[in-house]
Amino acid sequence: MGVVLLSGGMDSCVTTALANQTHRLALLHASYGQRTEARELQAFEEIADFYGAEHRLVVRFDAFRQIGGSALTDAGIAVPENGAALTPGASIPSTYVPFRNAHFLSAAVSWAEVIGATAIFIGAVAEDSSGYPDCRESYYRAFQEVIREGTRPQTAIRIETPVIGMRKSEIVRKGTELGAPLERTWSCYQFEEEACGACDSCRLRLNAFAEAGLQDPIAYRLAVRR
Amino acid sequence: MGVVLLSGGMDSCVTTALANQTHRLALLHASYGQRTEARELQAFEEIADFYGAEHRLVVRFDAFRQIGGSALTDAGIAVPENGAALTPGASIPSTYVPFRNAHFLSAAVSWAEVIGATAIFIGAVAEDSSGYPDCRESYYRAFQEVIREGTRPQTAIRIETPVIGMRKSEIVRKGTELGAPLERTWSCYQFEEEACGACDSCRLRLNAFAEAGLQDPIAYRLAVRR
Repeated sequence: MGVVLLSGGMDSCVTTALANQTHRLALLHASYGQRTEARELQAFEEIADFYGAEHRLVVRFDAFRQIGGSALTDAGIAVPENGAALTPGASIPSTYVPFRNAHFLSAAVSWAEVIGATAIFIGAVAEDSSGYPDCRESYYRAFQEVIREGTRPQTAIRIETPVIGMRKSEIVRKGTELGAPLERTWSCYQFEEEACGACDSCRLRLNAFAEAGLQDPIAYRLAVRR
Repeated sequence: MGVVLLSGGMDSCVTTALANQTHRLALLHASYGQRTEARELQAFEEIADFYGAEHRLVVRFDAFRQIGGSALTDAGIAVPENGAALTPGASIPSTYVPFRNAHFLSAAVSWAEVIGATAIFIGAVAEDSSGYPDCRESYYRAFQEVIREGTRPQTAIRIETPVIGMRKSEIVRKGTELGAPLERTWSCYQFEEEACGACDSCRLRLNAFAEAGLQDPIAYRLAVRR
């Protein structure tokens, strides 16, 4: 069995499709007070339904809203719409949620240890991304060591990052090839009915579909950007 | 500033006393559905009051109750009272909460990064303890690396484990020497009014006071064990 961290976005959906080829799925979703929390949860449930996943866990993380410091969890910090964070050499953007993925991985490890799962899949993307520090391979290597040190001796859990080295357009192509339900995914950082088309996450997604020569099946508020 | 993970137990109380010598305190408490959640929170607040700590954060962690697999978070698993886990070479006891400390450290790192704290103090004890894997030095060294990899480049946060190599009796002595409010701490795994005196945590504490030649100021149900 493999625990998959499924946010409901494109990368985690394709990661689920890949995990589904080799593992029984245990899908874990994090609700952490992010702006589009309800919409992401809906995407999670729809993707989980698509894969007929019996094992599902939705965990609430209260700390991020309490701590703030990110445009995704603090209403007082605007979500950037100018794409500046996506230029080479840009510093870490305000949408970085401090140390977020460690919380999610920790929940995945706890769950994996109890249900006897041997892998944790996470759809982190290193290069063609917003440049978050907790999306790089070296980060997952370090976390792997924490898992080895911090669990029972008989526990063996491997972190799998199958899309970490892919361009976003490759992820779109791979998902399409595997029949992943990309129409059920949600990527926008700020809206829940139509995607904004302007935040970094929308820009990365739109660029990815354009580069792949495919049509993004979801609706955007800024139709011009399609 | 230093973030201190303060459960309300003896080890974290003495760790707070030590941190207080060198850092402004930011005290973080985890409520995670453990049996004595309310009593531990009370201890946290009383110790925080004692140190006049302005910066306090109480975080709820829902995942552990949902995941279960531990006597502390799953009402269907009894808290052992026979002390068997404390014999040398014993396997990891059922009070082990799978990968728990990674959740707490993650919250501490997120908070530290946002408030600009440069240290995280945790009162883990390696040898004279229940043998949890996430209480050993090698575990904290590994987690230190995850912090380095997973935070902003300008963030520098050191994990401090000032009591990790101490015997419990040394912790009692150190706390007494520093005037730490041991009478406000709570260690029992299962009761909230009087400590049971039989669970591993009570046994370790009672042994520690006995070895230190000091009187434990809290009340026990099993008066005979004092």
